[in-house]
Amino acid sequence: MIELADVYAAWRRIRPYLHETPVVTSRRLDAETGKTLVFKAEPFQKTGSFKARGALNKALLLERPKGLVAASSGNHAQGVAYAAGVLGVPAVIVMPEDAVRIKKEAVRAYGAELVTQGVTVANRERIAREIARERGYAFIHPFDDEAVMAGQGTLALELLSRVSDPEAVLVPVGGGGLISGVATAVKALAPDVRVLGVEPAVAADAAESFAKGERVCLEAPPATVADGVRTLCLGERTFEVIRRRVDGILTVSEEAIREAQARLITRTKVFAEPTGALALAAVLEHGERLPGRLALVVSGGNGEPPRV
Amino acid sequence: MIELADVYAAWRRIRPYLHETPVVTSRRLDAETGKTLVFKAEPFQKTGSFKARGALNKALLLERPKGLVAASSGNHAQGVAYAAGVLGVPAVIVMPEDAVRIKKEAVRAYGAELVTQGVTVANRERIAREIARERGYAFIHPFDDEAVMAGQGTLALELLSRVSDPEAVLVPVGGGGLISGVATAVKALAPDVRVLGVEPAVAADAAESFAKGERVCLEAPPATVADGVRTLCLGERTFEVIRRRVDGILTVSEEAIREAQARLITRTKVFAEPTGALALAAVLEHGERLPGRLALVVSGGNGEPPRV
Repeated sequence: MIELADVYAAWRRIRPYLHETPVVTSRRLDAETGKTLVFKAEPFQKTGSFKARGALNKALLLERPKGLVAASSGNHAQGVAYAAGVLGVPAVIVMPEDAVRIKKEAVRAYGAELVTQGVTVANRERIAREIARERGYAFIHPFDDEAVMAGQGTLALELLSRVSDPEAVLVPVGGGGLISGVATAVKALAPDVRVLGVEPAVAADAAESFAKGERVCLEAPPATVADGVRTLCLGERTFEVIRRRVDGILTVSEEAIREAQARLITRTKVFAEPTGALALAAVLEHGERLPGRLALVVSGGNGEPPRV
Repeated sequence: MIELADVYAAWRRIRPYLHETPVVTSRRLDAETGKTLVFKAEPFQKTGSFKARGALNKALLLERPKGLVAASSGNHAQGVAYAAGVLGVPAVIVMPEDAVRIKKEAVRAYGAELVTQGVTVANRERIAREIARERGYAFIHPFDDEAVMAGQGTLALELLSRVSDPEAVLVPVGGGGLISGVATAVKALAPDVRVLGVEPAVAADAAESFAKGERVCLEAPPATVADGVRTLCLGERTFEVIRRRVDGILTVSEEAIREAQARLITRTKVFAEPTGALALAAVLEHGERLPGRLALVVSGGNGEPPRV
């Protein structure tokens, strides 16, 4: 199980190559929600999401890797591509043919090799691990890896150094890499601060796992606009941390996610992808159950651009 | 004619109530355009655009105003509403019925009174001046006022304090309030830096006025997506500054504006309204005519939110 020291070590390791992302606020959103909200704005992180943190921490811990491989159609792909660039080694990204165009473009823009032929959501990890074995590259899991989890947790160190006394931190949950790192840091540094996960109601595997005390998986990828959290279940390693250190998991409707995304953009001017708006969606939908001072993690800002 | 000292005085006056907006960059945009670009991000200014600067400078120069009045369906309305809030006096905003919903909401959210009945683009300034006279409030012109121009110019002071040696600054041009303030500051502080205006090709009154050496007006509001620059002509005061201190005016296609807006959002994660993307549109469309190190003013980020 990762501990605070792992997150701190990750921070020292990755800081030279990444941004400290800003914390933003909106008086109008505070008035509209009746809360005092601060947003940790990971869209401004390198690659446009927090995923660069974990991928880079993992990559820097490898011993002279010849290359990096990831199976991801999302932000982890860009994180690994960026990490490979830092190391000066090649990256191979395995993603399904039908992945979002802009994420394919972004991965190519970071100089990675893209493998899509015959790739589906079901077989992509197997294909990626095969490529890694054949070429002698390192496969980097998107969440169920302690170095990745510790890397993601570094955003909580930045947050707690800027924001005094939030009563709770709200964090999107997919595979659990981000929230497990964040909870590890928060519970060690500010144990009174609650750590709450947020996931789409149509992808409530984390909430169910948390309630039952054992990992529960979805049978098929959930139909949520929040494409960053379409994983089938939490990881084994992430779940161990989550059940010990997370205080609860909230679920939100698709409509609340859409509304939160629009509200974030119009109020804070930060372009968040739907997954990045999960925490605000929870405030919009469950405000009465939440305390007054909240820190919200806006996890990323990649996605198709709006057109006027 | 305003001078640097007026812009500096405005800065000292308004700074306590406004943000210093960040300068953002994107390596991918640099690679894509072959330039070194820095963006002055006014979407993060109070009210979501630079207009708060000029409105507030004007308001703070008035002698005990009983209230403020503006005729605007755009960002100037929010700027005046915000300025009235700073002064603790009422604001009346006159805008046509068919104004963008989100801008009406924003003006109400700042506590202003909204007058729309019977208002058209053609009669709105007259109605606003009547209301001002009846109530003893001060009418604040959106651009053709030296205090407003000096206030807008303060963004150039911030820019030049952060960005070393751009070869040119690109600024959206509507009525000319912003560029006249910016050019006044830039030409006094860094005379080698070129100041270039950008306007939609379908609203090329500033380019034509600049070329002819006299004010030319459009006959009807232009059909451009850049709703912040649908003015019919430059102001008398702004034109005097522009023809002396601006180095040129570029025009851009509607398609370039749309592409630039999308590119800004996906690359920098800053939500810009179409008008805010004019400067990048000029880089996309006229890159070969521009020097390598460019500072681009992203004027604002208000507008209808994208929906996923």
